[in-house]
Amino acid sequence: MSRHIVIVGLGLIGGSMAKALHGFEDFDLIGVDVSEPTLRYALEQDIVDRVEPDPVKALAEGDLVFLCLHPQGIVDFMAQHRDHFKPGAMVTDVCGVKGAILEGAKVLPDTVSFVGGHPMAGTEFSGIQHALVNMFHGAHYILTPNDRSRPEHVELMERLAVHIGCANIVKTTPENHDAIIAYTSQMMHVIAVAVCDDPSLFQYQGFEGDSFRGCTRVAALDVPLWTQLFTMNSKALGSALEELEGNIRTYRQAIEAGDTTTLVEKLSYSAARKRKMNRLELESGAVGREGKKPKV
Amino acid sequence: MSRHIVIVGLGLIGGSMAKALHGFEDFDLIGVDVSEPTLRYALEQDIVDRVEPDPVKALAEGDLVFLCLHPQGIVDFMAQHRDHFKPGAMVTDVCGVKGAILEGAKVLPDTVSFVGGHPMAGTEFSGIQHALVNMFHGAHYILTPNDRSRPEHVELMERLAVHIGCANIVKTTPENHDAIIAYTSQMMHVIAVAVCDDPSLFQYQGFEGDSFRGCTRVAALDVPLWTQLFTMNSKALGSALEELEGNIRTYRQAIEAGDTTTLVEKLSYSAARKRKMNRLELESGAVGREGKKPKV
Repeated sequence: MSRHIVIVGLGLIGGSMAKALHGFEDFDLIGVDVSEPTLRYALEQDIVDRVEPDPVKALAEGDLVFLCLHPQGIVDFMAQHRDHFKPGAMVTDVCGVKGAILEGAKVLPDTVSFVGGHPMAGTEFSGIQHALVNMFHGAHYILTPNDRSRPEHVELMERLAVHIGCANIVKTTPENHDAIIAYTSQMMHVIAVAVCDDPSLFQYQGFEGDSFRGCTRVAALDVPLWTQLFTMNSKALGSALEELEGNIRTYRQAIEAGDTTTLVEKLSYSAARKRKMNRLELESGAVGREGKKPKV
Repeated sequence: MSRHIVIVGLGLIGGSMAKALHGFEDFDLIGVDVSEPTLRYALEQDIVDRVEPDPVKALAEGDLVFLCLHPQGIVDFMAQHRDHFKPGAMVTDVCGVKGAILEGAKVLPDTVSFVGGHPMAGTEFSGIQHALVNMFHGAHYILTPNDRSRPEHVELMERLAVHIGCANIVKTTPENHDAIIAYTSQMMHVIAVAVCDDPSLFQYQGFEGDSFRGCTRVAALDVPLWTQLFTMNSKALGSALEELEGNIRTYRQAIEAGDTTTLVEKLSYSAARKRKMNRLELESGAVGREGKKPKV
């Protein structure tokens, strides 16, 4: 008898996870979504083996449950369905914040083991129609296991990450994950929207080059998702932004004062750091999409 | 008898300008540089028709003089050689700031006409070895003529811009040019270095994705050049940075306060602006390198 993976939320990531999980050990795939057309599409395209509109029924069979909803949706789902998980089940998520999710997972009964996860991949699109079987190829899979995560479940996640093509698994604390993400990703999104809020945006349109496009590309973001990601990681993101504000202010003050000595010193420091980073990145072979490295 | 273009400073832009100017009307090209190997290279590679290590001799023949030095170098050169320009000559520059250059050009005698220019093109490399004949293809050529610029010289620059492949000529004031550049280019460079100054840079290396790479790519900048560009445009850049600091702070405060209402409102506004900008950019056919559009 095969085991069952239940994927709750068949969006871009849930759909990609389903596609990538085909043939993983003896699992079959049950898709859960509130949208009837999404379920029909998932079935027609063979993205899952079965669909189940009622999460309670699906959870009763789920040996491994993937929560692929928006952050707040994951927290709410766990609270609402805390008593519906199959005893012995492993529950995981794919969310870009971890502290708030781990906090939410505390409602789960002792019969269930939760391992927080973040496969670092994505595109600027959303919805199952844009799901990709190779979405996770070369990506980092970050896991935040704790003392409630059973070792055999962590091992299962490690095999699963290999199956879907991840370059590596990184185990860390929720706090460290959230600090990493605040700096490497969330702050980039705040910068992009902050630049686009300037009244000059349309006034000077047509004069922007690659540096402007590179900096602002991600400003066309999914508002409800990023509102949740930002506020559910407010501590780490707030402190990254405060550091950035201070750094920009220091540059501005040196520029306004015409203090070329300080400016040369600071720019030399920063440019050297960036060059060193480029070297390290080249050596490690990192390239490509959000958080992706080529598979090694 | 042919007329003479004197190009002072055979670096990336001066060298590219020379390559692109071949065959322009009846002009021949005289290259001036302080570096003997650069002059030899320019001659061997047929980048110019003649080289002249002594600027005084070259200027005596120059009907059109291109100043392709670093910003302060241009100001200093005009002061030092104010009496060496050929009467009736037109002098122009290629510098990314205009107010300070126009101020410096006031030393020139009335027998010389100065038309400030900025062909918006470049790469992350420097030196004549990286000069490209198609460097200016599809680029904006910004001119800042004033009452001392003779109309026939402005017309000459317009024909020249077409010859080197620019998409269009934009005539504006030095103040407006500097405000455009402060926002669309210089600010992006300050953001990039400010992000790279964060102690987290190496700690979190390997987790950065496209958004991080896009934002920080230009941080590996030419320190002496950008020190001059920043300080010679301190007013416009200072005010663009102050606006940015305020925008980031507003986002941070909403995030730290968990104020999702404000956040949804602000993110919706910014994301909509960026989407509108993408649409306008698509419609105008803009793509590619710093300030470049395809030739139309």
